[in-house]
Amino acid sequence: MKMKTIGILGGGQLARMMALKGHNLGLNIHILSPTPKDPAAQVTSQWHKGELNSVKDLKSLYYFADIVTFESEFLDPVILKKSQQKFKTEFSISPSVLSNLQDRLSQKSLLEKHKLPTSAFYQIKSKADIKEYPVVIKQRRFGYDGYGTLILKTKPKSLKLDSPTGYIAESFVPFKRELAITAVRNKKKQIQFFPLVESFQQDSKCLWVKGPIKHAKINALKTKISKFLDSIQYIGCMAFELFETQQGELLINEIAPRVHNSAHYSLEGCNWDQFSMHLLACLNCDLPEIKVISPFAMYNLIGSGTKAPKLKVDADGFLHWYGKDKNRKGRKMGHINYLDSSPDKALKQLSKIIKEHSV
Amino acid sequence: MKMKTIGILGGGQLARMMALKGHNLGLNIHILSPTPKDPAAQVTSQWHKGELNSVKDLKSLYYFADIVTFESEFLDPVILKKSQQKFKTEFSISPSVLSNLQDRLSQKSLLEKHKLPTSAFYQIKSKADIKEYPVVIKQRRFGYDGYGTLILKTKPKSLKLDSPTGYIAESFVPFKRELAITAVRNKKKQIQFFPLVESFQQDSKCLWVKGPIKHAKINALKTKISKFLDSIQYIGCMAFELFETQQGELLINEIAPRVHNSAHYSLEGCNWDQFSMHLLACLNCDLPEIKVISPFAMYNLIGSGTKAPKLKVDADGFLHWYGKDKNRKGRKMGHINYLDSSPDKALKQLSKIIKEHSV
Repeated sequence: MKMKTIGILGGGQLARMMALKGHNLGLNIHILSPTPKDPAAQVTSQWHKGELNSVKDLKSLYYFADIVTFESEFLDPVILKKSQQKFKTEFSISPSVLSNLQDRLSQKSLLEKHKLPTSAFYQIKSKADIKEYPVVIKQRRFGYDGYGTLILKTKPKSLKLDSPTGYIAESFVPFKRELAITAVRNKKKQIQFFPLVESFQQDSKCLWVKGPIKHAKINALKTKISKFLDSIQYIGCMAFELFETQQGELLINEIAPRVHNSAHYSLEGCNWDQFSMHLLACLNCDLPEIKVISPFAMYNLIGSGTKAPKLKVDADGFLHWYGKDKNRKGRKMGHINYLDSSPDKALKQLSKIIKEHSV
Repeated sequence: MKMKTIGILGGGQLARMMALKGHNLGLNIHILSPTPKDPAAQVTSQWHKGELNSVKDLKSLYYFADIVTFESEFLDPVILKKSQQKFKTEFSISPSVLSNLQDRLSQKSLLEKHKLPTSAFYQIKSKADIKEYPVVIKQRRFGYDGYGTLILKTKPKSLKLDSPTGYIAESFVPFKRELAITAVRNKKKQIQFFPLVESFQQDSKCLWVKGPIKHAKINALKTKISKFLDSIQYIGCMAFELFETQQGELLINEIAPRVHNSAHYSLEGCNWDQFSMHLLACLNCDLPEIKVISPFAMYNLIGSGTKAPKLKVDADGFLHWYGKDKNRKGRKMGHINYLDSSPDKALKQLSKIIKEHSV
């Protein structure tokens, strides 16, 4: 009984949820991560201890996997390429595409090149380059959940940038609201879209999502996104975080070449969830049509730093706890999905439910 | 970050699905089963190799578990009781209740005692006791999926019963259709019911389920079931397989003191699935109200014995593959759930989908 084996680089919640869904599809799920306490390491018998930037450790995963995929874009493309060539492993994304997407400068340039709407930006070569305010300064690499992002309303008295060339400057977009959409593509060039959702950020970190949302401009954007994904021969899920401007335009804020927090609702809100769809894409299976089962909301359980978080496991809503070892302040510890007759009702109910948990 | 630890005796598909759902609830899931290839052994890092009838092996699970539960009623109550007393382990069901339920004679007597409607039956002491036909002869212990069940329309020329006292005789019920309902109860005496469903058996094995089904007599039966569960102080899910007689009465055919194939639809069809609810009951959490998300159908993927089953993982429907090592003929290898606007539509669509898989 030979089922396909998926190797996942990384052991966080995204890998965990991919593993849980992979089990249902009958796939063998192998995980490479540093410690057995990692969220994904707990949910499979096929865990390999190792560092993601060690060619030797990568080998231990490659040995088993028919195809290797990622839960994070922050992997070293040089090491990936080197190890891939050495062990002839199939990757869901080529290291060079990953390299382009993990740097905000090349990411923004790529968006511009493919005529995808995004805010104006420029590379910072020295602090003197920053002349107009308000401005958003973003670290080019390894930024997430607002880490590495600085919003300057006016010129600051002093500005510390450890290495100016490590940053880009973006026009500040006074948005009406933030939206998000996830696309998924396979090698057969089939593309499916999850529904458009509204997402709300607190301290630059996603707090909740609700959907599905209608928008006059979304179909035009989907067409552009499809062309873009074809052009870079992308495989798997890609999330697009959007600004809806005061004028009702859709601008791409950031993209993430992986499954993403803004599509966690799909676990119960859709006939196919993003983790299963990502796996189907990796295996070059046909991509089924994605349908919404019910209007939905998703709320993140953000760590407060307490050593004894109290989950009310019998509270209503679909709980997805990540099993993280430490409850750090601001850390995403889990999320809850909720279905109701409208996105607003779902969010309203879920906002009450969330208070029953003390994380 | 101390979460509760659930110990599950057994490594089959029921334990597997309980483990997968337990992960979402943030529970530590420990499994005791004979081999690492067992379905449940694959989906947790906390697997313990052992036999379920070895006091020594049971100890290795008891050491970790806050509470121990079962996926099968066919455990030796004497060994359970002995090991429980030795290690002061909390069980979801007391071994004496388990003992009563695993023997069809005492199970039927229990139903009769609690005035639960069931077919007439008698104990067989010798073959000469069987006088009226048609009759259903059932092995008292270890029977499941039709194994150990014999339907005699007329008196046979010869009848082999290895030990007649190991069987009971039941009146043959000419039913209109088979129905099923699962109840769940906790120590706080809260009881919830999953919806009534129709189930169809092929070769005495569940092939499909659809629901929810309405029936004029179900509320009266629920009242009796609740009293029964209270009386035996039952904890967890209990499945009731029912006959709807030609006269429209509901008769209990068999009961299973555990999560059950006839409620697998709940994984996607309800706001709470049977595995999560069983775990909540074990932990003596409040039992949330069970709501149907959408009409549903469930179809089992039954093994044909081929060495190379072909799953079409991208076919529509919610696939739940069990990861069994060998594809034996007649074995339950997985199931698919499907949601649609009516139970009949769901079953019709699912009947097409099921043909895309070659198991």
